[in-house]
Parts: sequence; C-alpha cells; structure tokens
Amino acid sequence: MTTEVQKNLLERNAAYAANFTQGDLPLVPGKNYLIVTCMDARIHAPAAFGVNLGDAHIIRNAGGSGREALRSILISEQLLTTKEIVLIKHTGCGMLTFTNDSAHALVAERLGPTAAAEIATMDFLPFADLDQAVRDDVTFLKKQSAIPEDVVISGWVYDVETGRVRGVV
Amino acid sequence: MTTEVQKNLLERNAAYAANFTQGDLPLVPGKNYLIVTCMDARIHAPAAFGVNLGDAHIIRNAGGSGREALRSILISEQLLTTKEIVLIKHTGCGMLTFTNDSAHALVAERLGPTAAAEIATMDFLPFADLDQAVRDDVTFLKKQSAIPEDVVISGWVYDVETGRVRGVV
Repeated sequence: MTTEVQKNLLERNAAYAANFTQGDLPLVPGKNYLIVTCMDARIHAPAAFGVNLGDAHIIRNAGGSGREALRSILISEQLLTTKEIVLIKHTGCGMLTFTNDSAHALVAERLGPTAAAEIATMDFLPFADLDQAVRDDVTFLKKQSAIPEDVVISGWVYDVETGRVRGVV
Repeated sequence: MTTEVQKNLLERNAAYAANFTQGDLPLVPGKNYLIVTCMDARIHAPAAFGVNLGDAHIIRNAGGSGREALRSILISEQLLTTKEIVLIKHTGCGMLTFTNDSAHALVAERLGPTAAAEIATMDFLPFADLDQAVRDDVTFLKKQSAIPEDVVISGWVYDVETGRVRGVV
C-alpha cells in the first residue's frame, strides 16, 4: 500500500531529483556551523534561516532541545569541524502547552498501562518560559566540557506569525 | 560580537520575513505526518521531500535516529495527531564512518579526560549498514506500545549524489 504521504514524497522528490545539480557536496559542512531548532511544521529551516545546501547541519526535535541535540552536536563538532552553534526556539511552541505529568497521563488514558509503563521514565522536556528555555539550553551547551570553549553558541527565537528571528543570548 | 554566521542569519531571515505570508498556520500539521531524517548539511528536507510549510513535523539528528526521535514522535503523535512516520536515512552518512569506541577515543585525545568522562556513557548511535539501520529503526518504532498500531511507518534512503529517495521498508 502506498499512502498519500508516500505518493507525495515520491512525486515531489522525483521532480527535485530531476533538477538536482549539487551531488558533489562534501560531508563536512561548507560554513562549519549547525542549527538546532524545533520540529514544528511551521518552520522551514533552510529558507527561514538562510541556509544554502551544504552550509550547515540542521538538528530538529520537539522544542529545539539543546540537551537532546548534544549527541548530534558532538558528532558535528568532533568529527565534522563545526565551530558555531545557532539554537532557535519559536513562538507558539507545543512544548509550552503541557507538562511531563499531563503528557504521561495522556498516554495512559489513550493507550493504557503497558504503553504508559514503557515510557514511564521519559522526560518530554517541556518548558514554561520561551526565552528562559533558550537561555537554559545555551547555558547547558556552554557548560559541556566536550564542546570546546572556542565554539560560538547563540540563542534565538523565531516568530511563526511574522517569520522573523530575534536574538536572545 | 556578531559572527558571519549570525550576520547571514539576520540578513537572510529579514528577506524571508519581508515576503512571509503564512503567519496564520495552526500548531497541528496540515497533513498529519512527520519526517525523521539526518542533520546532514546536504539534505534540505522541505525541498527534497516535498513538504509544504505547515504540512509535517521534521525531526533531524545525527543519522536520522528513530530511537532518539522517540520523544519528539510521541509528542507529535499523542498531542498533535500525527498518523504517519516517514524515516529517511541517506548515502554517505557520517554515522557509517566511526564506532562508539573511536568517537570516545577522539574526544579523549582532543579534549582530555574531563570531557571524556562527562560523556563516557554516551551512545553515539553509529551504524555499519545503511539499509539495515533503516529497517532496525522502523522495527524499533513499530514495537513501541506508545505508538498506536494504526500509525503508518515507512523507511527510505536518500541519495546525496542524485537527490533521489528509494523505499526500503
């Protein structure tokens, strides 16, 4: 069975590949930086943040968590010469709308005790204050001994209503 | 101090925002699916995978790990009605080039014992076989009790030299 989503992927990708001319880019990003941002569907990172193909790693997860991104950041920095980290959270983020307790309760209610038990120790990493969450993640990353001190780390907020970023830290 | 990377972000984002007309998209993705793929700089997910702004969550990490994406997937599915998961790894992935032992040895060599100790328990999630890694991640996700059985999960490989995707599972 091919779903509508899979049909869309295949059709749109075939059109992309038909015009693709950048098949010789190297593994190491051309501008030696990486972006950490949220998975949110309202963010198209390359366009919104001005990333040309091959310029930068783009890490995305629920909330744009710098903590969860640490593994990817270390691989990017240690093995692939990344020298700058740009962390961008955004207005209207889903992570502002729940707590760990409410998320676990929802899983238990919808899917029952087996599912709830399976993820009982999961920290969903929600946050209550957007700018503070940006500062906290930047502070967390700056404290990591495994990220060299000369790696530049900045924190930003993207406004999903205006399309504009502003610096936080 | 504003770095070249930050100047680029501000300038390119200002141009993006000046032409931005989609400020009223809802939090819930329009097509109720999500993509998990790699952070690799040679992948521009929206263009390569045919995602319109607002259609789908995009999760990216080193290697396109479904395991690490689980937290984001659960938030997307439980709270934001995602009904389909598309996992896409790619040719030439950095994760094929090292092992946990070599990554930990590199951190110790470059940054010393304090940094090495700080991340001693980190699993960098490397893999040795691309297609098998896709199958393993899809199997892992299908086994999760916290992901309902009616969520469709497929696995793919993107070729960074041709720009083309192919189905794996």
